[in-house]
Amino acid sequence: MRLTRFFLPTLKENPSEAQIVSHRLMLRAGMIRQASAGIYSWLPLGFRVLKNIERIVREEQDKAGCQELLMPTIQSADLWKESGRYEDYGKEMLRIRDRHEREMLYGPTNEELITDIFRGAIKSYRDLPVLLYHIQWKFRDEVRPRFGVMRGREFLMKDSYSFDLDYEAAKRAYNKMFVSYLRTFARMGLRAIPMEAETGPIGGNLSHEFIILADTGESEVYCHRDYIDYDVLAEAIDYEADLEPMFEFWTRFYARTDEKHDQDVFEAEVPEDRRVHRRGIEVGHIFYFGTKYSAPLGASVSLPDDRQVPVHMGSYGIGVSRLVGAIIEASHDDAGIIWPESVAPFDVGLINLHRGDAGCDAACEDLYASLQAAGRAVLYDDREERAGAKFADMDLIGLPWQIIVGPRGVKSGQVELKNRATGERQELAMEAALARLLGVR
Amino acid sequence: MRLTRFFLPTLKENPSEAQIVSHRLMLRAGMIRQASAGIYSWLPLGFRVLKNIERIVREEQDKAGCQELLMPTIQSADLWKESGRYEDYGKEMLRIRDRHEREMLYGPTNEELITDIFRGAIKSYRDLPVLLYHIQWKFRDEVRPRFGVMRGREFLMKDSYSFDLDYEAAKRAYNKMFVSYLRTFARMGLRAIPMEAETGPIGGNLSHEFIILADTGESEVYCHRDYIDYDVLAEAIDYEADLEPMFEFWTRFYARTDEKHDQDVFEAEVPEDRRVHRRGIEVGHIFYFGTKYSAPLGASVSLPDDRQVPVHMGSYGIGVSRLVGAIIEASHDDAGIIWPESVAPFDVGLINLHRGDAGCDAACEDLYASLQAAGRAVLYDDREERAGAKFADMDLIGLPWQIIVGPRGVKSGQVELKNRATGERQELAMEAALARLLGVR
Repeated sequence: MRLTRFFLPTLKENPSEAQIVSHRLMLRAGMIRQASAGIYSWLPLGFRVLKNIERIVREEQDKAGCQELLMPTIQSADLWKESGRYEDYGKEMLRIRDRHEREMLYGPTNEELITDIFRGAIKSYRDLPVLLYHIQWKFRDEVRPRFGVMRGREFLMKDSYSFDLDYEAAKRAYNKMFVSYLRTFARMGLRAIPMEAETGPIGGNLSHEFIILADTGESEVYCHRDYIDYDVLAEAIDYEADLEPMFEFWTRFYARTDEKHDQDVFEAEVPEDRRVHRRGIEVGHIFYFGTKYSAPLGASVSLPDDRQVPVHMGSYGIGVSRLVGAIIEASHDDAGIIWPESVAPFDVGLINLHRGDAGCDAACEDLYASLQAAGRAVLYDDREERAGAKFADMDLIGLPWQIIVGPRGVKSGQVELKNRATGERQELAMEAALARLLGVR
Repeated sequence: MRLTRFFLPTLKENPSEAQIVSHRLMLRAGMIRQASAGIYSWLPLGFRVLKNIERIVREEQDKAGCQELLMPTIQSADLWKESGRYEDYGKEMLRIRDRHEREMLYGPTNEELITDIFRGAIKSYRDLPVLLYHIQWKFRDEVRPRFGVMRGREFLMKDSYSFDLDYEAAKRAYNKMFVSYLRTFARMGLRAIPMEAETGPIGGNLSHEFIILADTGESEVYCHRDYIDYDVLAEAIDYEADLEPMFEFWTRFYARTDEKHDQDVFEAEVPEDRRVHRRGIEVGHIFYFGTKYSAPLGASVSLPDDRQVPVHMGSYGIGVSRLVGAIIEASHDDAGIIWPESVAPFDVGLINLHRGDAGCDAACEDLYASLQAAGRAVLYDDREERAGAKFADMDLIGLPWQIIVGPRGVKSGQVELKNRATGERQELAMEAALARLLGVR
């Protein structure tokens, strides 16, 4: 993509309304634009990151044997009255009356609707287990939306739902999601730690939050250092195997947010040199809640002896749009965003230091064509701008690699390659720079 | 995907609420489930088709140089008051009050919001042209939603917006979308004919509907037969070239829906043997409307002489979810759906006629593995069901190819290959059947 054609309205000044760094950087980098309080449009740069995150989430859900469907955003209030949550949910639920004065709502979550889908389709224990997910926009009418996409009102979420015959089978589904979440976040360059959690309005008996560590996080977290050092992606996973040992491995040490923290237990269980006390951001939350929805909604299956039993359910959420902000909170510096390669909006930024110089233009066109031919997404800064502005913008939007082409280097066939994360710069022959980039992933 | 694990709640009976064939078949094939009036959940089979259609739309938009972003579903009423459409729009607009009693709405279209994004980012004629699109759920509160996804209330739409300096430049954008629409629909196996159209609530001076021919279509259409015979995909398109000759080619003959039809003109302009009078379904609609939104919303650019002029705009819609129904209306028979290969939820259906027979099971596993290894999406009917039920279900869901594996054939290494569209069946050696399938696209 040529920058002269790319819709990228970056800002030079820090927007005054943004209190946290991810919000500030997303506005400055032209990733989002506020449509109204807590509601954002995703501009092309932000949209590319959102799609990359969504793709990773989808791939990992599919690997875990979860099937994708798509439920609508607008739901009838009737189902929520059946489950008893319509009155409970309070003002966070966006309530709507349609033209016929029917009570509707913009779904803040989908336990009721998926249970309705299940009960309309599955009648026998033989058709279990069922594990379904969707990635859809939700709405929660926060009283004071803030922190950009981290606490917006309209947000993109992946939510999965499991249906099983009994607790043991439901725990297998829980473990699948537990393990797949570890891997999902690791693929985005995040270290997410599962922590015992309150179940809140979803309810249930067993629940873990997945928390990433970031200095600007919303809550304090306390955990054992071993969780941080372990490489989640080191071994392949067979989702049909028994995942209980892995679940136990990841829950064997203390790991709690301030909500559940107990300093005495922390100090008793964790040796002093292994204690971690940091700030964290919630990026996922999983629940087992048994028959909380299946019983009132009549989602039952028949057993071999013809008895009807309500199914055991769980639900499993990942904040897809929130992750865009969370990754920035975890990965930035004073100059801007530092994207992990897996979610970066482009792989490489190509900077032409002297647009109009025949040598620079030709070298850039060459590099641009070669990188794209090799399947790399390239943002080519072909603007007539001074070098300083180009460097600043490229650092701000945080692509993993930069190739800098200037008139002096070009004469001797040299370009500069910069790694955004380390800041390391290297003068290289054009072919060597290309080889480095094409080998990087 | 193994059918015993796939969430596919097919229905044996015709659902009484469905008046048209696509609605009936989508419910029977377990593609959708109604959540409330005019609002549907997309079950895994339907979701796969929806995603395939979305992918084709996206690819063709990208080729035409359109940039993707994503606007939210919920909009503030303020912008619509600025444009003057808030009062005009009537009861089809789903109006919402949030917890602070602010007037919001569920976007039925996005001219206002995209104009707001444009005016916040683009200030100079030098930054034109701009061509943006998104694929997002919309809501129109139809008084009597019916015909399934063909006239639902919550629906998925691709809408593009062009911003240009003057009419001539805007017409170039219009032509790009015009040509890309022809190709988009052709890739889905549809023959879409652009017809002069009323501009309706979007407004404007120039507008075409893209209509596909289907006996069950909602409106009557009248056109010249040459439009039907022409192969749109025969030649490659350079979107940077002058597309006016192609626009003229596709608008040189009579083509109108009943709304604009004039029998005298039709008979005067079209020779009797070239007259086509059929029924049709609208799948796309494009508009040029000049400064209708940019003037009231102040979306202007500065000229070299510093004068400010409002930009010329157009908008361009494709009904993504509606297309799922429209394709079925255009392509089905008494037994069920006949998917064009490009949008089919799976490429191949593999039918094991005798689950439990060692030969059949082994042959099916072999075929299943080989087809998947070659990148084909396979739905393997591994249920313990009688043959008749398997044939009926596979015809109903309409995958382009079926491989039928029975105990008698397997003994001599033979399987049956069935083409769903032609009904042609052929006994073949397993390897020959595989070769046929792997050559088909």
